[in-house]
Amino acid sequence: MKDLISLKYADREPVINVLDQGFVRLVDCMPSRIPDAEESADHAIAEAARCCYKRGTKSIRDDKMLIRYLMRHNHTSPLEMIEFKFHVKLPIFVARQWIRHRTANVNEMSGRYSEMPEEFYTPQPDNLRTQSQLNRQGSEGSIDAAEAQAILDQFTANCRGAFTLYREFLDSGVAREQARMVVPLNTYTEWYWKIDLHNLLHFLDLRCDSHAQWEIREYADAILELIKPLVPWTIDAWQDYSPYRNGLMLTGFEVDQLRKVITEANLSAGEIDVDNKLEQIEWKTKAKKLGFE
Amino acid sequence: MKDLISLKYADREPVINVLDQGFVRLVDCMPSRIPDAEESADHAIAEAARCCYKRGTKSIRDDKMLIRYLMRHNHTSPLEMIEFKFHVKLPIFVARQWIRHRTANVNEMSGRYSEMPEEFYTPQPDNLRTQSQLNRQGSEGSIDAAEAQAILDQFTANCRGAFTLYREFLDSGVAREQARMVVPLNTYTEWYWKIDLHNLLHFLDLRCDSHAQWEIREYADAILELIKPLVPWTIDAWQDYSPYRNGLMLTGFEVDQLRKVITEANLSAGEIDVDNKLEQIEWKTKAKKLGFE
Amino acid sequence: MKDLISLKYADREPVINVLDQGFVRLVDCMPSRIPDAEESADHAIAEAARCCYKRGTKSIRDDKMLIRYLMRHNHTSPLEMIEFKFHVKLPIFVARQWIRHRTANVNEMSGRYSEMPEEFYTPQPDNLRTQSQLNRQGSEGSIDAAEAQAILDQFTANCRGAFTLYREFLDSGVAREQARMVVPLNTYTEWYWKIDLHNLLHFLDLRCDSHAQWEIREYADAILELIKPLVPWTIDAWQDYSPYRNGLMLTGFEVDQLRKVITEANLSAGEIDVDNKLEQIEWKTKAKKLGFE
Amino acid sequence: MKDLISLKYADREPVINVLDQGFVRLVDCMPSRIPDAEESADHAIAEAARCCYKRGTKSIRDDKMLIRYLMRHNHTSPLEMIEFKFHVKLPIFVARQWIRHRTANVNEMSGRYSEMPEEFYTPQPDNLRTQSQLNRQGSEGSIDAAEAQAILDQFTANCRGAFTLYREFLDSGVAREQARMVVPLNTYTEWYWKIDLHNLLHFLDLRCDSHAQWEIREYADAILELIKPLVPWTIDAWQDYSPYRNGLMLTGFEVDQLRKVITEANLSAGEIDVDNKLEQIEWKTKAKKLGFE
Repeated sequence: MKDLISLKYADREPVINVLDQGFVRLVDCMPSRIPDAEESADHAIAEAARCCYKRGTKSIRDDKMLIRYLMRHNHTSPLEMIEFKFHVKLPIFVARQWIRHRTANVNEMSGRYSEMPEEFYTPQPDNLRTQSQLNRQGSEGSIDAAEAQAILDQFTANCRGAFTLYREFLDSGVAREQARMVVPLNTYTEWYWKIDLHNLLHFLDLRCDSHAQWEIREYADAILELIKPLVPWTIDAWQDYSPYRNGLMLTGFEVDQLRKVITEANLSAGEIDVDNKLEQIEWKTKAKKLGFE
Repeated sequence: MKDLISLKYADREPVINVLDQGFVRLVDCMPSRIPDAEESADHAIAEAARCCYKRGTKSIRDDKMLIRYLMRHNHTSPLEMIEFKFHVKLPIFVARQWIRHRTANVNEMSGRYSEMPEEFYTPQPDNLRTQSQLNRQGSEGSIDAAEAQAILDQFTANCRGAFTLYREFLDSGVAREQARMVVPLNTYTEWYWKIDLHNLLHFLDLRCDSHAQWEIREYADAILELIKPLVPWTIDAWQDYSPYRNGLMLTGFEVDQLRKVITEANLSAGEIDVDNKLEQIEWKTKAKKLGFE
Repeated sequence: MKDLISLKYADREPVINVLDQGFVRLVDCMPSRIPDAEESADHAIAEAARCCYKRGTKSIRDDKMLIRYLMRHNHTSPLEMIEFKFHVKLPIFVARQWIRHRTANVNEMSGRYSEMPEEFYTPQPDNLRTQSQLNRQGSEGSIDAAEAQAILDQFTANCRGAFTLYREFLDSGVAREQARMVVPLNTYTEWYWKIDLHNLLHFLDLRCDSHAQWEIREYADAILELIKPLVPWTIDAWQDYSPYRNGLMLTGFEVDQLRKVITEANLSAGEIDVDNKLEQIEWKTKAKKLGFE
Repeated sequence: MKDLISLKYADREPVINVLDQGFVRLVDCMPSRIPDAEESADHAIAEAARCCYKRGTKSIRDDKMLIRYLMRHNHTSPLEMIEFKFHVKLPIFVARQWIRHRTANVNEMSGRYSEMPEEFYTPQPDNLRTQSQLNRQGSEGSIDAAEAQAILDQFTANCRGAFTLYREFLDSGVAREQARMVVPLNTYTEWYWKIDLHNLLHFLDLRCDSHAQWEIREYADAILELIKPLVPWTIDAWQDYSPYRNGLMLTGFEVDQLRKVITEANLSAGEIDVDNKLEQIEWKTKAKKLGFE
């Protein structure tokens, strides 16, 4: 048996800094001990899957092929046999998006128990984004550089002022649980976060995606980078198959339209047969990905 | 306000018989009271979703369009606001597949507490299936009629014998919790099962599917039929979009191949660029669905 | 069948105002239709429990007694057959404690999607509490009245300033998802929250408790008041048995000490046989509850 | 860092045989690598808990004391940071009780995919138990030795007959998914089972208990024995505090009665002030544990 994390992180710490003061640190992995003949934690997925396929079955020889099969067919329970534990420092508004993933274990720093340090996230000036006009919950482009700096100066002053007040309240004897009410949503918090690989891939599906807020995407990308050396076959399969990565999900209307294109040999994307502008727009985007002009 | 179940099940009970002695009965639905202006429970999905889109948002006028949007984009949390409760009578081997869906509430008849009645599932002679040669966990075709009857005669005798022994053990004073060990896996059990609509659609994805064992599919189909009048817009959207229904999931290799077909205007499915026989076979199946010859 | 919520809330809305601008509104209950012979939703617990106790069992005649039995013996799965849906308006710092209860369904207002209104929680002057010296995560007593008002003036000015800045950022074109970072933790949010009765009682155990922060306790108390008319037998049993209410949990050391008291007929609480000051203090508190001087 | 499992299981395999052909094998533990200064996985609980208690807090010096504190006060989320993976071979009727614990990950041998070997559980003659008259779901005492052997002869013949038929069906071409319907509930199955320590302690609470069926208790006891060397402080605290072990849960009525005993200095258990025979009986049992005659 050998120690997987030491093997993959021999010359660097399994930590990635995120945003201006945050980080993701890989604390542990199950399995962390792997047989000498193995190169990654992937084998433990195959080991659990093979429990389902006992006597009377032909051996599926290749663990890698087995994992790819499981991933293609959403046979995800063997992926639940892999577990990761992270230590994360993140702004509260990111934590609030993150915690919506319920199938995980969390131990968070308590603002009732401990004084919150004056640590808050400040965007880089060139990353102060404008409201997307198309996507009501997205952003696009950047604020003009000169204006961005002026905004961020006000931003920083506001956050510092809030923390000054917070400490004054504490000095006046106000309970921590009440004093903290004035600190802003970009205040950093910390937690231990433990999750299995199946649920983690779902987290990555949603949070490495272009529709996710840029700030949480930075964390998701860091997690992806940290676990990739530990389960490389699984991550490859996920990249190849997930509809949030290289794969593509077609609706019934889109299947019908593609069938029309192919059977009628008319190589234009056309319109799908549904009375809904939004679906037409979504089809255009997919059609482009499929090579239609 | 009006009572939804009474409205949709005015002239029949919300019960469907399944297999030879089983059933699915719809016990309750949340919401069961709906506003007079509404026709189904779908509206409660839109109501919860709109909580996310307060001031500063354009109204998405059409509840039906909103639900379809949520379904297309896997924004499934509003679907969790709908809850169904069923009373089900089913063979134990079906119950064992069913219980793998963990995000549900269950109250099952206890063989420790109660004497199990002599009720076991017997397949119809024309539904005694042969082992699939392609799919190791599937079945296909039927056993020859004459042989089927002979097999089922033995089958029934064996099950009856087991129950006779079970009752003799009880008469000898053996504890119910031990005596029951001899009864076969096709013995009927009963349970109350409560689940939200998001998780129920996932159950239907897997269990209405052609890869599911026929016996559990009968139950899944019954559930689908029972809930369809209560959430018709959601079920329509599911039929249109789910990759287990009319939708289709493409891998990255398949997207690449389709792009090649379209940009090179060569209307043959061809082979995907991956060294894996199984994926080539899966591509052939999808290609057929897409209209390739 | 009759409509339970209309029955219990005939002359008032099922809404309770909480804190200065918040509320809890009971949206729905499963079951909401109850048989004419019933008075509450409790019967649905007994109905599910009886599914476990089929043929061969003596009837436990009284539903109320059955529910009390289930509660005493932690047979909680039938309680999961009851479901409640609430609409809640609450400050973000309360929402962050609340969301730690993972076994529930949530749809929250999105600060990415919608502009956040200038609504924040301000404590009453006589409810600005001082830090507890004994309990690191608690509060006790109040800040002196004159000082409290001065603190709250600063508090309010800070929050208003943050919202002014927030709106200025929006006016400058900053994306909502970034602009919101400056608003404080006492900003109000809203959500739909759906949970089964078993998990709700666990929430009430922890959040109606004296160790919970006063602000979340106000919400928990409101929920308790709203559901009590709907499941009165269950709530009575919970009050009688839960160690967080009238019941009491003894450690092994405390059982040993009580046995010593009783067998040696020496009616003084004494000390438990464990080398841990904190446990001795906890025993003193319990001893007082048990009538020791 | 050192390897925890190798340290504790240097001279024996982490496997315990259970019943006549079953076993529990400890496959993995998170953490499995522990710092050189540590002796067990307990430290990872304290590590996660301390994340909640950052700056502004006095250090709670002793990890062991911290864990005991967490256990006494049901602050169980740090316990979720420890994870165990087991490989278990168990009869199907035991598996059906076990699977009711939903917060775990499972990969089970598939009777659709694989031929089931002729392996079934046979009780020892002196462990064939009679039905409890007091507890409808329990057993007590043993069947008379001579009769027990006769019963078990029939028992074995029945199970062998079922397996003979099963194989005949397979030979006739019947699909595995249907043929398996005739095998009895004591047939052995296998699974990988992964669970965090908090949920595992709840499993042990219920399944090491005298109310659990003896056969599943054997498995629970084996698990307890396997994990005890890995988290000794946690197991000690559990033994000392859990109301299912050395602790005791009192109802409000029992607290009232104890208070009466102590304030009136009348050292007889008496009756609690509630009109319910069953509660009086339960009080008698607890009173005995507390030293009343």
